[in-house]
Amino acid sequence: MAQDLFIDTEHSFKTYEVLKSNAKAMEKDDIAEEVPIAFVYNGISHAVMLASPSDLEDFALGFSFSEGIVENKSDIYGIEVIHQPKGIELQIEIASARFQSLKDKRRNLLGRTGCGLCGAENLDQALRLPQKKIDNTLTIKESAIIKALDTLHATQSLQKKTGATHACAWANEQGEIQLVREDVGRHNALDKLIGALQKKSFNDKGFVITTSRASYEMVQKTVMLGASTLIAISAPTGLAIRSALKYGLCLIGFARAPHYVIYTYTERVTKN
Amino acid sequence: MAQDLFIDTEHSFKTYEVLKSNAKAMEKDDIAEEVPIAFVYNGISHAVMLASPSDLEDFALGFSFSEGIVENKSDIYGIEVIHQPKGIELQIEIASARFQSLKDKRRNLLGRTGCGLCGAENLDQALRLPQKKIDNTLTIKESAIIKALDTLHATQSLQKKTGATHACAWANEQGEIQLVREDVGRHNALDKLIGALQKKSFNDKGFVITTSRASYEMVQKTVMLGASTLIAISAPTGLAIRSALKYGLCLIGFARAPHYVIYTYTERVTKN
Repeated sequence: MAQDLFIDTEHSFKTYEVLKSNAKAMEKDDIAEEVPIAFVYNGISHAVMLASPSDLEDFALGFSFSEGIVENKSDIYGIEVIHQPKGIELQIEIASARFQSLKDKRRNLLGRTGCGLCGAENLDQALRLPQKKIDNTLTIKESAIIKALDTLHATQSLQKKTGATHACAWANEQGEIQLVREDVGRHNALDKLIGALQKKSFNDKGFVITTSRASYEMVQKTVMLGASTLIAISAPTGLAIRSALKYGLCLIGFARAPHYVIYTYTERVTKN
Repeated sequence: MAQDLFIDTEHSFKTYEVLKSNAKAMEKDDIAEEVPIAFVYNGISHAVMLASPSDLEDFALGFSFSEGIVENKSDIYGIEVIHQPKGIELQIEIASARFQSLKDKRRNLLGRTGCGLCGAENLDQALRLPQKKIDNTLTIKESAIIKALDTLHATQSLQKKTGATHACAWANEQGEIQLVREDVGRHNALDKLIGALQKKSFNDKGFVITTSRASYEMVQKTVMLGASTLIAISAPTGLAIRSALKYGLCLIGFARAPHYVIYTYTERVTKN
């Protein structure tokens, strides 16, 4: 009862005492943690997300990239992860031209802004799709989609412990999962994946797969990555479909092997 | 292909042509829409959320209340819903004392802020729990929890069409669902429910039930409402558990009739 609201910045999950409805006594259960994580660019605090405190360098790199704060990993000079009593600071040093551009944007954004649309304060700032279509029209075989769906679950170590986290993964043309990142938030999981892919100078012949729904922002971030295809285990939104169509992304949803639904660029999926 | 990224502010779902993996031809399917919705207080733009364009007055009232912008519905003088080409503006007229307090907060919040933590730019601003514990220690019968879980699905009309939306509902002590609100975002669904409850001067003898996970923000908003209990169909986070414990909320998760798990204040659930 007198337990304080302390922030554990070290663990992505911890053990709690819980009472299950069909049990007589408390049991131990693994629960996902959620930690305030602040993005600080060249010393200036920029945004805070609640996220799983894992793969933080990937998160810093991926968020910076998918939000358009940097254009290449060479724009990032350094990332420091600082544990504080109230959360984690990601101190990111970026090229001065990129920092100037960020400051110019910030000047236009006085005030509080909304959940789900990072940085948007009014309707003109709400949708931040890139200037041009992605230039990647890779065709994917159904067998690769099914293989990725069949193997994704086995890669979700945090989800297996806690049942509380999303995963985003990168699969190659054969449907083999090459990289996976997990987080309590689907946008964070995708940013971590994008960061991890950027670190490796990734080969774009493959696809992104997410355990979440396909909202507008999942499409926007995948377009920023330049991937040809986003596969979501759950439903898309109409805005996500229209954005995918406009920006050249093949969008697949309700992907639960052996079934899936194609919403855009149906010609990019082949049966064999 | 040349279809523009237009924003439909009128519909919470629309019909799209989709290709199912086991079909030879395109079929029609209902898809949830997602619309940028701006909150404008006394003429000043404050935040934008992506949300389902339904129950917008409830959303305006509930968000204003759960974010601590107003303390009572009498602080709100009027709500106007304005459809624009790029989304919807909720123009909310609030008492001048509340607007002054909002302006004072905004002065401390120069710059972009993060998804998931509305208004937080650095770690000190990240967690916005209220000053005191909620004063509501209602005991709930297991039979009421089961009844609410058994009947919730039938009330989710948008989810039945689209498979893409969350619901938050208010159930009375008997587990009868009194009010339900749906949205593509779980926080928005809860804000809409809170707004709808405020309109009715609700009787606090009951509980909130959500189809989502129980993150910190779901706990924070339920505490702002003053409800005794939050029941989530999916997992809680550790920060949500610690917040619920500190602020007097009975938190139940993985609630899938007939099973559920109690994380805090186990004494408030009785078997009969």
